[in-house]
Amino acid sequence: MRSIAYIKEKYLQVRRLSESLCENLEKEDYIPQPIEDVSPPKWHLAHTTWFFEVFILMKYKKNYRVYNPTYHFLFNSYYESFGERIIRAKRGNLSRPTVEEVYLYRKYVDEEIFEFLDSQIEIHKELQLLFEIGLNHEQQHQELFIYDIKYIFGTNPLFPKLVSKMEYNVVPMQKAEFINVIGGVAEIGNDGMTFCFDNEMPRHKTFIPDFRIMNRLITNGEYLEFLESGGYNNFELWLSDGWAWKNTNQENKPLYWHKIENEWYEYNLYGLENLEFDKPVSHISYFEAEAFATWKGKRLPTETEWEVAATRNFSSEEDYNLLNNGVFSTRVAENSTQFIGDAWEWTSSSYLPYPGYRKDKGALGEYNGKFMIDQMVLKGGSYATPADHIRITYRNFFQTQKRWPVTGIRLAEDC
Amino acid sequence: MRSIAYIKEKYLQVRRLSESLCENLEKEDYIPQPIEDVSPPKWHLAHTTWFFEVFILMKYKKNYRVYNPTYHFLFNSYYESFGERIIRAKRGNLSRPTVEEVYLYRKYVDEEIFEFLDSQIEIHKELQLLFEIGLNHEQQHQELFIYDIKYIFGTNPLFPKLVSKMEYNVVPMQKAEFINVIGGVAEIGNDGMTFCFDNEMPRHKTFIPDFRIMNRLITNGEYLEFLESGGYNNFELWLSDGWAWKNTNQENKPLYWHKIENEWYEYNLYGLENLEFDKPVSHISYFEAEAFATWKGKRLPTETEWEVAATRNFSSEEDYNLLNNGVFSTRVAENSTQFIGDAWEWTSSSYLPYPGYRKDKGALGEYNGKFMIDQMVLKGGSYATPADHIRITYRNFFQTQKRWPVTGIRLAEDC
Amino acid sequence: MRSIAYIKEKYLQVRRLSESLCENLEKEDYIPQPIEDVSPPKWHLAHTTWFFEVFILMKYKKNYRVYNPTYHFLFNSYYESFGERIIRAKRGNLSRPTVEEVYLYRKYVDEEIFEFLDSQIEIHKELQLLFEIGLNHEQQHQELFIYDIKYIFGTNPLFPKLVSKMEYNVVPMQKAEFINVIGGVAEIGNDGMTFCFDNEMPRHKTFIPDFRIMNRLITNGEYLEFLESGGYNNFELWLSDGWAWKNTNQENKPLYWHKIENEWYEYNLYGLENLEFDKPVSHISYFEAEAFATWKGKRLPTETEWEVAATRNFSSEEDYNLLNNGVFSTRVAENSTQFIGDAWEWTSSSYLPYPGYRKDKGALGEYNGKFMIDQMVLKGGSYATPADHIRITYRNFFQTQKRWPVTGIRLAEDC
Amino acid sequence: MRSIAYIKEKYLQVRRLSESLCENLEKEDYIPQPIEDVSPPKWHLAHTTWFFEVFILMKYKKNYRVYNPTYHFLFNSYYESFGERIIRAKRGNLSRPTVEEVYLYRKYVDEEIFEFLDSQIEIHKELQLLFEIGLNHEQQHQELFIYDIKYIFGTNPLFPKLVSKMEYNVVPMQKAEFINVIGGVAEIGNDGMTFCFDNEMPRHKTFIPDFRIMNRLITNGEYLEFLESGGYNNFELWLSDGWAWKNTNQENKPLYWHKIENEWYEYNLYGLENLEFDKPVSHISYFEAEAFATWKGKRLPTETEWEVAATRNFSSEEDYNLLNNGVFSTRVAENSTQFIGDAWEWTSSSYLPYPGYRKDKGALGEYNGKFMIDQMVLKGGSYATPADHIRITYRNFFQTQKRWPVTGIRLAEDC
Repeated sequence: MRSIAYIKEKYLQVRRLSESLCENLEKEDYIPQPIEDVSPPKWHLAHTTWFFEVFILMKYKKNYRVYNPTYHFLFNSYYESFGERIIRAKRGNLSRPTVEEVYLYRKYVDEEIFEFLDSQIEIHKELQLLFEIGLNHEQQHQELFIYDIKYIFGTNPLFPKLVSKMEYNVVPMQKAEFINVIGGVAEIGNDGMTFCFDNEMPRHKTFIPDFRIMNRLITNGEYLEFLESGGYNNFELWLSDGWAWKNTNQENKPLYWHKIENEWYEYNLYGLENLEFDKPVSHISYFEAEAFATWKGKRLPTETEWEVAATRNFSSEEDYNLLNNGVFSTRVAENSTQFIGDAWEWTSSSYLPYPGYRKDKGALGEYNGKFMIDQMVLKGGSYATPADHIRITYRNFFQTQKRWPVTGIRLAEDC
Repeated sequence: MRSIAYIKEKYLQVRRLSESLCENLEKEDYIPQPIEDVSPPKWHLAHTTWFFEVFILMKYKKNYRVYNPTYHFLFNSYYESFGERIIRAKRGNLSRPTVEEVYLYRKYVDEEIFEFLDSQIEIHKELQLLFEIGLNHEQQHQELFIYDIKYIFGTNPLFPKLVSKMEYNVVPMQKAEFINVIGGVAEIGNDGMTFCFDNEMPRHKTFIPDFRIMNRLITNGEYLEFLESGGYNNFELWLSDGWAWKNTNQENKPLYWHKIENEWYEYNLYGLENLEFDKPVSHISYFEAEAFATWKGKRLPTETEWEVAATRNFSSEEDYNLLNNGVFSTRVAENSTQFIGDAWEWTSSSYLPYPGYRKDKGALGEYNGKFMIDQMVLKGGSYATPADHIRITYRNFFQTQKRWPVTGIRLAEDC
Repeated sequence: MRSIAYIKEKYLQVRRLSESLCENLEKEDYIPQPIEDVSPPKWHLAHTTWFFEVFILMKYKKNYRVYNPTYHFLFNSYYESFGERIIRAKRGNLSRPTVEEVYLYRKYVDEEIFEFLDSQIEIHKELQLLFEIGLNHEQQHQELFIYDIKYIFGTNPLFPKLVSKMEYNVVPMQKAEFINVIGGVAEIGNDGMTFCFDNEMPRHKTFIPDFRIMNRLITNGEYLEFLESGGYNNFELWLSDGWAWKNTNQENKPLYWHKIENEWYEYNLYGLENLEFDKPVSHISYFEAEAFATWKGKRLPTETEWEVAATRNFSSEEDYNLLNNGVFSTRVAENSTQFIGDAWEWTSSSYLPYPGYRKDKGALGEYNGKFMIDQMVLKGGSYATPADHIRITYRNFFQTQKRWPVTGIRLAEDC
Repeated sequence: MRSIAYIKEKYLQVRRLSESLCENLEKEDYIPQPIEDVSPPKWHLAHTTWFFEVFILMKYKKNYRVYNPTYHFLFNSYYESFGERIIRAKRGNLSRPTVEEVYLYRKYVDEEIFEFLDSQIEIHKELQLLFEIGLNHEQQHQELFIYDIKYIFGTNPLFPKLVSKMEYNVVPMQKAEFINVIGGVAEIGNDGMTFCFDNEMPRHKTFIPDFRIMNRLITNGEYLEFLESGGYNNFELWLSDGWAWKNTNQENKPLYWHKIENEWYEYNLYGLENLEFDKPVSHISYFEAEAFATWKGKRLPTETEWEVAATRNFSSEEDYNLLNNGVFSTRVAENSTQFIGDAWEWTSSSYLPYPGYRKDKGALGEYNGKFMIDQMVLKGGSYATPADHIRITYRNFFQTQKRWPVTGIRLAEDC
């Protein structure tokens, strides 16, 4: 049972991080929505605030005065339970409320939350869970914010920077090896003893054969070989839908790669720079990950395989690229297996409910369950994932053609 | 090892069935393609013939003279290995070759096949497999033909009939019950001792918890209750993509249902008739199946659950609705569990490769593997499946929104 | 005032021509609708029949029994006055009624019309007009039928033929010259003394400056020069919408031209043959006609200019390519100015009502007036226009990007 | 011949107005592009500056240093002559350059322009024309800016205000009357003695019959009658394309009208207020204007009729709603005929070149000519038109479905 003091501290920390991530933004940067997937930074700041307002303040705080009812129309994401909302693709049409007004909204809600917490003697379990969900929800939006601002900046011909060059501590990548993992009946999923999302539960048995899995992620350099060997032009390597996706959209390289006067560049949050061959390849679709694996004569791991392998091979030291206290981490331990951080790893498993899954009642039931179709599971977090937000049982999910998240590749093979 | 005589007999039987299914068609009926999914009947007759021409005759028969090279452009379905082909959505633009010319093409290829078989002493294994695949392929198109002509007729305001009223031997449906199935490590998939498609292999271990599964399919009457209780208007029952699909397409009933002056009707191959409450509901999307299950407080079975349950509960008597010798079967045994025939049952499993799956080399490698993404598995066959074409390990697959196949619902629940 | 005998004779002649145009069709050819603009031949035969049924029989014949009420839903083109109708793009989905049934429908209506005419002593003016409109309407569909079957055949890789090679009597084209025409206040439009469509009236004054106009149409050979000089790649020649149309659809030649092994071919109703350089270029969009004119340093004529020039230069002998008694004419007089027949000539005038235009009351008011927006006027008829259906005041109209009608180019310039 | 001093004064005045129109904007308001037609305010400020840079500075100022070459990609509108440019629909994706940077760009170009002007003794005619075009071009964008910010604000559920309530000096509208105008051969168009756009020339003869035209614009109140009498539901009133447009987009009222709890409101630049019945109806498509006229038994005037009538009835006093020195004018003379200002009046004439029209050479040739297709002419300016930017010969043009400009209705009828 968490104390009120603990909740307040955690609340402050998370809420501050959202704002400090924005500290290098100009007001203009808060507005655009270049593709439907990308939400304007302003929207993230307001939506996460709306979440606390409707799930906690309106329900639990006596005489709570709603800040602005129109905000509920503007900043609801996908909750049918709360009625009408602005069409997702139109979030970028809104110049108002201004950025300043959104910060005032945040301030108002934060003060009301603190007033509420201060008036309580203890926080019952259900409410505690709501706080945990609200804060984890905001952490998810911190990561989405990073994808989104990267897209806003990375597709602008001026290539603005969010941060100055991270002195990414490039340690020599491990020599790629395939680790043997003994199969059998395995348990995966979260037992719910500490916070997790409903989609990670229940912990359950599953069967996997023996398999082998790579000891690190695929690098830019390795992916470049695939590209230069004609991988994008060989239909035999691609799923049928992937081949169509590639042709329709004329895709032939990762999202942020550019070839300029015969040299390869990549946009990163610190600008357009020469492609670094030893960094994990990122911003590739499932189709590209799958085609790469086929080209290598390997395959992607299933989510069970990934979780079993990660459990056995995960080094607990903080030697991974993750978002730490609002700072992009640059430490990488030598010989890191990269199971955590760096890039979300596409698995070959569809995002479906675990056996025995029960979605929550009420509006929270809309959090995860209704998206369990036609998406693939990704595991392990990325450099944009807050360090205290990731765990081995975490299930992320995107549609096969998405490339704006930080997605990467780890290979597996049958024994 | 099959004898040449056996192959000839089987070949004749399958090839004849394709033509006899068309015997009530007018020439005009062979042409339209009302939606991209639906291929013109003429196209099925020609494409299945093209399959034998390119996979067998051109490769194995000496001095084989191609019937018409342009046909290879017109009647290739999705094989990149064989080069350019007409865009799928444009199959209905072709009035030529005429129906008669397509029958001549069939005759030519059949004669060449026989000439070839007669010239052989024995048929080696690889070639034998090609015959088996070619014939099973044609059986798949026989079933697709039935979906397609049903769509062509069922969306025509004149509601033409393909057959006269099948005296569907309506036996009282079983009282719905949930059968207990003990879980644990189970084996599913095909061991390949007799013919099966590559996607059914390898036979492999998997783990399932104990579960319960319904002893028959959901009926029209039961589905009508869902509809009339407002099931289509309650977002809590639907996957997010399903809710969007339903709203965008304004769907609120199974594909062939019509409400006319307050009475419910259903188009069947024998015309528009009053809805029969005891027949299995059919022509519903995955989204509708899933929403129905949620409304009932149940769920759809996984493919493993289905296969395990079917194996234990499948009565071997021929008491199922299947396509028998070109005749729509009308026998239903009392107390049929309906695992085989009637309607393809949506499972909650994505169509993905089995552990250890290997796709074929060459053009046959394009048969199944490249479609293993963003589709769901369906099991058990339908009344439109040729009786000797179905088996418990058979994996059918469609995208979540498809309704033109004969799709139905069986429920499961956790123990 | 026309006698009943005259009406019967004319009725028979027109109705027979529609059917004789189809005499080389296979039943399959009656069905497809490869693009929305193209109606299936069957639809033309039925729609023109529906027109007589609803405008004459249902209104004037006592106790008339409607042939099949569903046909009214299937074969209404665009008359809101008659209620719901099948979506235009779905005409090609209909295999039924069969071709034979449509001919029976024609026969039924024809017999009813004759029975009706035989029962009358005289035909009052309003009814006479309905007959004239009905027959002219059917003639319009005869021409559309030719466009449509040309598209159905000309986009089929087998390039079927509608007719055997027309011995197009190729006389040497005139040397291109620009004829001087003195301007001033001119009168154009139809005085309505004989039949014309409402959009040709009233005859009215308009002012034109002196101008010069070409003495014949632009040939394939001349257009080929434009193409080979890079006309399709020079933005300076194109309207902005035309440039976008061309780029989006990757158009770079007239609709039925093909370049095969470095030789130019054109599909005509008698098959794919070498491009004939002296024939008028046809099947080009307004954008292409306009770009060609710009490339030549000329312009297209306005509809007033065209009508004034044609009136003064039209030779009354029947020396033009027009559809005569169901036969594609092949006579071309030497020195023909080609104002009538050959190809519809794009003018630079928008299709708008003439000053003082009044549309008809009731359903006939929907015939022309509601289409007077965002289309361009074309003048002079084509080889597919029935010879007794064309006159100098005739106003045809298509949208700027349409190429499936027989469209051509005549140039003009300022004095 | 204009003096350099005059040019400088005019330059300053126009450039300042663009900025002063933005003075109530927040930085966020400069960014969104809610529909393709609407450009972000920032884009207008930069594009008009780019125009002076590429048409004057780069061509005439020695050693001119381009401010930022990437801006040429970002801020070119539609000039193919200047190469690649950002896709129009993506103008709203750009958060950078920031608003401040754009103002610096303006400052830089303004200073360079002044340095250039100060270095000259006199400005030759061609260059003088470039200044005039550049400034008139900027005035056009001032008007577009007002349409665009109205759209950005007027479709935001918070309904922000650009200005405080204009004390629109509501004088009683004239009683509607139709003024007789004697026709015959008339001259319209501009003789080019003072500045005009190329599309207004040459002045030329045309013929019009006698006609009658309304002495003022149609009011909101009159339009409301049309709406409430079911005008939007009666197909007989609509052009075919208009009926389709209305149904597809579910339009049933002018763009900024809202019905809230049975009361009618309209968004104006000063917020959402009760609909003022006596103000001119505005923000209606051509289709709506045409349907309204049909409902009244009248028609829209042609551009010739409008110009002839305006010439005879235009009062030269400044008694119209126009943008004066950056202030929305509020004076309306009693008995104003409203030919100038208030709202652009849809005419029934297509936007086509005048007889004898010649487009400019080079990049300026892309200014007007290439848009002369599939648009309608509008006359007379609106309250958003700078007062010194309008004249009777001015030809504005929009596609039939556009509603975001300030469009209105004046009726005409035949004598």
